[in-house]
Amino acid sequence: MSDLHRATGGLCTDLYEIRMAASYLRRGMTAPATFSLFVRRLPPARGFLVAAGLESCLGLLTGFGFDGEDLAFLRRECGFTAADTEALAGVRFTGDVRAVPEGTIVSADEPLLEVTAPLPEAQLVETLLLNQITFATTIASKAARCRLAAPDATLVDFAARRTHGLEAAFTVARSSALAGFDATSYVEAARELGLTAVGTMAHSYVQAFPSELEAFSAFAEDFPAQTVFLVDTYDTTDGISHAIEVARSGGLPPDRLGLRLDSGDLATQAHTARRMLDAAGLGEARIMASGGLDEYAVADLVASRAPIDLYGIGTRMGVSWDAPSLDSAYKLVAYDGRPVLKLSAGKATAPGAKQVYRSWEEQVDLLCLDTEQVPPDPFEPLLETVMTGGRRTAVARDLKSARQHFAGGLRRLPASARALSEPEPRQVTWSPALRALTRRLTEESRPTTGPHNHARGSE
Amino acid sequence: MSDLHRATGGLCTDLYEIRMAASYLRRGMTAPATFSLFVRRLPPARGFLVAAGLESCLGLLTGFGFDGEDLAFLRRECGFTAADTEALAGVRFTGDVRAVPEGTIVSADEPLLEVTAPLPEAQLVETLLLNQITFATTIASKAARCRLAAPDATLVDFAARRTHGLEAAFTVARSSALAGFDATSYVEAARELGLTAVGTMAHSYVQAFPSELEAFSAFAEDFPAQTVFLVDTYDTTDGISHAIEVARSGGLPPDRLGLRLDSGDLATQAHTARRMLDAAGLGEARIMASGGLDEYAVADLVASRAPIDLYGIGTRMGVSWDAPSLDSAYKLVAYDGRPVLKLSAGKATAPGAKQVYRSWEEQVDLLCLDTEQVPPDPFEPLLETVMTGGRRTAVARDLKSARQHFAGGLRRLPASARALSEPEPRQVTWSPALRALTRRLTEESRPTTGPHNHARGSE
Repeated sequence: MSDLHRATGGLCTDLYEIRMAASYLRRGMTAPATFSLFVRRLPPARGFLVAAGLESCLGLLTGFGFDGEDLAFLRRECGFTAADTEALAGVRFTGDVRAVPEGTIVSADEPLLEVTAPLPEAQLVETLLLNQITFATTIASKAARCRLAAPDATLVDFAARRTHGLEAAFTVARSSALAGFDATSYVEAARELGLTAVGTMAHSYVQAFPSELEAFSAFAEDFPAQTVFLVDTYDTTDGISHAIEVARSGGLPPDRLGLRLDSGDLATQAHTARRMLDAAGLGEARIMASGGLDEYAVADLVASRAPIDLYGIGTRMGVSWDAPSLDSAYKLVAYDGRPVLKLSAGKATAPGAKQVYRSWEEQVDLLCLDTEQVPPDPFEPLLETVMTGGRRTAVARDLKSARQHFAGGLRRLPASARALSEPEPRQVTWSPALRALTRRLTEESRPTTGPHNHARGSE
Repeated sequence: MSDLHRATGGLCTDLYEIRMAASYLRRGMTAPATFSLFVRRLPPARGFLVAAGLESCLGLLTGFGFDGEDLAFLRRECGFTAADTEALAGVRFTGDVRAVPEGTIVSADEPLLEVTAPLPEAQLVETLLLNQITFATTIASKAARCRLAAPDATLVDFAARRTHGLEAAFTVARSSALAGFDATSYVEAARELGLTAVGTMAHSYVQAFPSELEAFSAFAEDFPAQTVFLVDTYDTTDGISHAIEVARSGGLPPDRLGLRLDSGDLATQAHTARRMLDAAGLGEARIMASGGLDEYAVADLVASRAPIDLYGIGTRMGVSWDAPSLDSAYKLVAYDGRPVLKLSAGKATAPGAKQVYRSWEEQVDLLCLDTEQVPPDPFEPLLETVMTGGRRTAVARDLKSARQHFAGGLRRLPASARALSEPEPRQVTWSPALRALTRRLTEESRPTTGPHNHARGSE
């Protein structure tokens, strides 16, 4: 990712992280802490999540630290002492990170990532990690649903104009590529990530010429190798006729030709366009639909057998319209060798560093303590070590391999979890040891509460 | 805004913008074009929008251009010729921009911004402008609703951990400050924008100590000047007791003391906390609520007279949960002195450069052609010139003045538009001249359509 897209400063965090870290540093509380990043509950319409965002997290962790200006600001405006800022000046991320590979299909409660590092470091990076993982996973999960809606169509990310900023446009291009999109309109992401960039024409192009026919002629002349005509600026049927006229008179190769429909009844128009193209001997020309699409609209178009070859999917995927974030958490699960838990109403967390063992055959995941014995075949561990002592391990997975990893998981996901409406997530079973530890700590942490002393663990 | 947060490259756009610009440049179509940026429809629950994002747009326009690497990529991967990239190399933004000031309350159809520039330039910046204005306006509009829900409370932006990236965290802090928030937890934004940074403690801090009491004692010792205890890690009533015990034994000044409630029944807990604090002689200590709040939850708490002084509002504001984007458009309305329009079904646009004249007294806005005579008092124009020839004009409005501008508008907004549920937006009336021009162009642009030749303008 380009530096332009990234804020690496130590101030890119919530103030409380720095206050807590300063307090820990004052008190020498620098023993190893393990934090677990997971999603508490899936949004109603989601049967699974697609893990994403790890790559940018590892980049941010590698560059983490405070510079002189950061420290001066903290001292001047935020009430930190000279001793605090001196201690913070030395902080780098020197910890270990275990994570599921990008593209892994996960459910609620399953750690996407676990950090083990001296407590101040592990605390300071909370906001960064939650921010990057939550957003990228939100989008990858939404994009995967678009892929499910149209398994055989070409999907293009059209979201850049209405994502939450330009960094978001980049992340959306990357997360949607990871989850099965074929191309993006966002050029910066195409360059940085080696994606296919796709560009057609806007209504303004048509309007800038005296007539639609003249606009199409000019565009065909300038881009004969890939010509997609937007045909709905004035009247769609006229637009299709004009496109066909220009394609034939200009001798455009039909297999490099396309029509884009961006408004109105897309199914009916696609049938009309297909008929007119075929009648004109342009059977290889392709039809693209865009304009407010999401997985539901695409599924409806596919169900109606609309002859649409490409879908340009923008805002509703790029902001994950029906679930624009996830109920993610980054929770302390162990400190100084001691597993810990939290009991807050509705937000209780399970203690201890964890591992997830998955069986696709039995369609079940086991949520275990990391110290437990590995369950027998066919269970496979999901979390792998991606950083030790602040340095990335040899485990390198590029976007292409993450994409393949996702596609493999999606194929094995049961239909009930893949459903776009009322899906049923795969089962996640807590190991007996994790249940027992949760129960024990829940009881121990409430020695004085009397009538409140009932277990509120997450079991 | 820090460079770290910003991508200024010419490739931060949709490919089609560059394709169209290259085509215009080949053809010498560099006459002045005017594009209008507006929102077509308000989301269902919105009675008004709060314009935001202009400042970052002006920064991006000032730095707009392609560097050598950009051009090499376009030539190598995107099918542009050497002549194209040579022409693109010379492109800077040299146009004029008129815009409503940040913090202006606007409705559907009203231009937030109009660009007049040589056609290729005006086209190339479309994605940038839409991206920045749409997002910032979405968030400012959502944050304004939180302000309406609790007119007298202190509101703190807690969104950074789940915004759509770190640039988004910055924009959310800025847009919410503009729309009446008092502080932010996001340190980078506080530094860049001179906002008040607020930080409490997380559950992990409490968990890292052997007991809650020890955690609170340590925090009070380290941050006596501003001490907010998070009291729900284990049992909230116990937590409140522990906080009171530490505050009294440590002699903390009650007016610098606070309790934060982050889960469960916030209203009941706030009443309990208030009672316990008052009984302990800590009447000046303040109570903060957080945890999944939005304007609806805050309005309910206010209606129930929960004694909450501060609200930490995070994800649901920071992603604008119920309407995470806007139906924004950037449409060509004039080229080379000729007004133009588009008729696409459901997306028709009105022609010509525009001005909006507002009367707060009559609670009506007039949408006019920019060339029309200024209506008499009490109407005031909303759009002002903020850039000429690619340079910013002397019209400088900082965040503070934008915030005052917003507050002034909010006070004058009728209750019907301010309602959180089923609001009624203020009336926007098209001038007779704009109606007439729209009608004429609609008829002219459909000379050949026969049965389709009915007006589909936006009137």
